[in-house]
Amino acid sequence: MLLERDILQTTGFRNVRDESGAVIGFQFRLRMPNYRGLAASLIDGIAVTVGSIVDVPADVPLWTFGGRTYTLQQLWDGEGVRWQLEEPAVVTVPFPGGLPDGIHEVSIELRLRMSYVPIEHQPSIYRETRHITLTSENDGSPFKYGVSLYSYMGDFGTVLDLETALAHVADVGATGVEILGEGHIAGFPNPTTAWLDRWFELLETYRLEPTNMGSWIDTRLHSSGPNARDLTGAEGAAMLQRDLRLAGQLGFRFVRPKIGVVSSDLIPHPAWTESVERSLELAADLDVIICPEIHAPTPIKHEVVDDYIALIQRTGTKHFGLLLDTGIFQDRPLPETPTSLPGKRPAFMEGIAVDPADIAAIAEYVVFIQAKFHDIDENLEDQQIPWEPVLRALKDSGYSGYLSSEYEGARTPWRSIEQVRRQHSLMRRIVAGLD
Amino acid sequence: MLLERDILQTTGFRNVRDESGAVIGFQFRLRMPNYRGLAASLIDGIAVTVGSIVDVPADVPLWTFGGRTYTLQQLWDGEGVRWQLEEPAVVTVPFPGGLPDGIHEVSIELRLRMSYVPIEHQPSIYRETRHITLTSENDGSPFKYGVSLYSYMGDFGTVLDLETALAHVADVGATGVEILGEGHIAGFPNPTTAWLDRWFELLETYRLEPTNMGSWIDTRLHSSGPNARDLTGAEGAAMLQRDLRLAGQLGFRFVRPKIGVVSSDLIPHPAWTESVERSLELAADLDVIICPEIHAPTPIKHEVVDDYIALIQRTGTKHFGLLLDTGIFQDRPLPETPTSLPGKRPAFMEGIAVDPADIAAIAEYVVFIQAKFHDIDENLEDQQIPWEPVLRALKDSGYSGYLSSEYEGARTPWRSIEQVRRQHSLMRRIVAGLD
Repeated sequence: MLLERDILQTTGFRNVRDESGAVIGFQFRLRMPNYRGLAASLIDGIAVTVGSIVDVPADVPLWTFGGRTYTLQQLWDGEGVRWQLEEPAVVTVPFPGGLPDGIHEVSIELRLRMSYVPIEHQPSIYRETRHITLTSENDGSPFKYGVSLYSYMGDFGTVLDLETALAHVADVGATGVEILGEGHIAGFPNPTTAWLDRWFELLETYRLEPTNMGSWIDTRLHSSGPNARDLTGAEGAAMLQRDLRLAGQLGFRFVRPKIGVVSSDLIPHPAWTESVERSLELAADLDVIICPEIHAPTPIKHEVVDDYIALIQRTGTKHFGLLLDTGIFQDRPLPETPTSLPGKRPAFMEGIAVDPADIAAIAEYVVFIQAKFHDIDENLEDQQIPWEPVLRALKDSGYSGYLSSEYEGARTPWRSIEQVRRQHSLMRRIVAGLD
Repeated sequence: MLLERDILQTTGFRNVRDESGAVIGFQFRLRMPNYRGLAASLIDGIAVTVGSIVDVPADVPLWTFGGRTYTLQQLWDGEGVRWQLEEPAVVTVPFPGGLPDGIHEVSIELRLRMSYVPIEHQPSIYRETRHITLTSENDGSPFKYGVSLYSYMGDFGTVLDLETALAHVADVGATGVEILGEGHIAGFPNPTTAWLDRWFELLETYRLEPTNMGSWIDTRLHSSGPNARDLTGAEGAAMLQRDLRLAGQLGFRFVRPKIGVVSSDLIPHPAWTESVERSLELAADLDVIICPEIHAPTPIKHEVVDDYIALIQRTGTKHFGLLLDTGIFQDRPLPETPTSLPGKRPAFMEGIAVDPADIAAIAEYVVFIQAKFHDIDENLEDQQIPWEPVLRALKDSGYSGYLSSEYEGARTPWRSIEQVRRQHSLMRRIVAGLD
C-alpha cells in the first residue's frame, strides 16, 4: 500500500456511526509527515477545522492505530502503540450528525514531539488544508457504481500499485472495478499464478467485482517497415479471443474491444466484423459480453453504431452490446493544458454534445457505461459533462447497470484519486434528486 | 517495483560494454507513456540526443525487453514481444567509448503507433528532456559507498516501496544500505517473517550489505499530559537494546542512537550514558558498533564529542564509536524554500563550517560517515558542502569505511533519486582526483 503525498489523505474521509447506526462524527486518515514512525505517546494532538462547520482543539479527536481507538490521554499514558510510517493514522472527530455529503475544506494542525529538537521549538507542528470529498452515503440506485483503473493513468505504477488502486476504488463505495487488460494485468497476457491469487484475494478484501476489461484489436500491429502488412480478420479474432479467455478467467462480465480505425471520423477497420463474429461462440461459452464503445467524436446516430446493432440483429447474439462513453455528451471545451495525448488538439475536444435524448433509441443494446469526465471543481461542478440530463436519460431508458468512472483530466500525480471521489459524490447526489 | 514519473528514468543510465570489456555505447530506461503496455511491433523507434555529443535517428537505438535485445526491424517483424506497462524499456544507443562520467542533458523523441488514432495523427510522439547522471565507473577507493533510505524521505511509501528504493541504491554502484529502524522496517519493532525473508532476498538481488541502522532514544516518550515524566536510563537502555537486537537480526554492523536533547546546543539527555553503558555487552555479543552522530550545530571540538570519547577510553569498548554527519562542514546557507522541518529557521541552517582538518584529532574513533547533502546542481556542483577538502581530510585520516548518502534537500517527489546519483558521481570523481 502506498499513501497519497499530502498528510491529509482523501481516501478514508467519511462519516462514522455508533452501534445504533447514529452518525456520531467523521474520520479521515493522515500520512506520518516525519521520516520515521513514532511511538503514539509522542503525538500531541491534532486541531481540526472543516469549513465554518467544525473547529475542534487538538485534544478532542480520537486516534485509531491497529484497529484500536484511543483518546489523546490514553496515547500519552500508553506503551507500545505506534503510528507506523507505512500506515495511516485514522483520526475521528466527534460531531453528532456528521458532515453533509460533498466536498469540504479540511484544515489540520498536527502536533508531534521530537525528543532530539530543543524544547523551545517543540512540539513540531504540521499544518495542511485540502478540499476533500466525503464518501457519499447516497444509495445511487438504480445504477451500480464502479471505477476504471484507467482513471489512474500515470499514477498507476508510479504512485499506486494494484492494491492501493483497489483500496481507493472501494472507498468511494464502488462495487465494481474495470481494468485495461494490457495495462493492469502484470505479465499480460500470461499473468503468473501468484498474480492471479493476489487478484482474487484483493477482490475479496475490497469487496469488488470485476466489471469490464479493455481489449485492443491492434490493426496496425505490423504496419511499419519493409514487411508492413494489414491485420487479418483471423488475427483480430485471435486477439479478441485471447482477451475473452483472460477476462473470463479473472471474472469479468464485459470485454470492450478497441478497434483500429481507417478514417478521420473513426470508422473501424473492416476486420472488426470477422473478429467479433468468430468470437461470439466463445463469448457465449464464457458468458462475457463483447461491447465496443460509442466514443467521441462518434455520436449515437452514426453508421458505426448502426453496423454494431445490425450485427446483433443479424446474429441474434446476447453476447454483443454497446458501451456508451459519456464523453459524447461533453458540451463545454476541455482546457488548453497539455494532455497525455501528444499531437494537435482534435476538434472533438470542444465536445460533440450528443443529446442525451438519443440514448432512448439504442437503450436496449446498451450494456455498460464508461462515465468519462475531466474536471470537477471544488463546488462539485463538472466543467464538461452535463450529468443531470445524462443520468436522467439513462434512468428513463431503464438502464440499471454500472456507471464506471473514467477520469481523463490533468495527470498531476495523485489528482485522479480525489477527482474520482468527486465524481461518485456528484453522480449519487444527482441520482438521488431524480424523480 | 515503481517507476519514476518521467518517461526517461534516471536509474539505469549507464555505459555498456561488450564481452571484451570495450565500452560500445550507453543505455537508459523508459516508462511506457501510454495507458497500456504495447506489442513491441507498435514501437516506431526513438531519436536520442545527448548534449552536443550524441544525435541518433529513431531507427538506431536497440531495445531490450525481458532480457533480450532487438533492433527496431526485429521488433516490427516479431510476434509476442511486449513493452509492459509495469516494466521499463531498456534503450541502448551504440556510441563507441561511451559517455563521459557525470550529468548529461538527454533528449528523446519516442514514437509509438496507435491503431485507434486516425493515421494522419500517427505515430504518437512523446518528447522529453532531462538532466540525468550516468552511473559512475570511478572506483572510489579507499572509501565504500552506501545510501541511507533517509535520502528518500517523503518518497518512501508514496512513490517508492522497499524494493524500488534498494534498486535505486544499487544502481549508483553502492554496496551498502542504511535504514532508519522505525522508518523502513514494516511492523517495527516486530517485522513479520515474510518481511524478514523479503529483506534478505532483496539484499541478495541487489547485492547490498546492511550498514547502519538509525535508532532513537526517545527521552520525551511520556513528557506530555498530567502523568508526564522523564525517561529513565533503564528505559533508554531497553530502547537501544531492542534496536541492537533487531539490527543484528537484519545484518547491520552499526546502530546510530539519536539521543534526546536538554539544551539549545543539543547537549544529550543525561540518560544517554547509562543507556549506552548498559548496552555495550549486548553490542559486543552482536558485534554491532553503537555510534552517535556528530551533527550540526554540534562541531567536532565540543564537550559532547569529548564525553563520547571519554566513554570509549573509560570502558575500553570496541563497540562504541563516532558517526560524522557531513552537514557539519556546510559552509554556504541552505535555500529559503520551505523544508520538511516545521517552525523557525535555526541559525545552523547557515552552515557551521567545521574545518575538515578537525577530523584528524578524532579520526581513530570515527566508524561511519553520513554523507549529508542538500543540493547538487546540473554542473555537478554541491551548493552547500565542500566535498574536496572533506574527502581529502577523511582519506588523509585513514578512514576507509562507508560514505552513506543522506540527501536532505527539497522533497519534490522523485527529486531524491537523481540527487543521490549526482552525489555518488561527484564523490567518486573527487576521490579519483585526490593524490
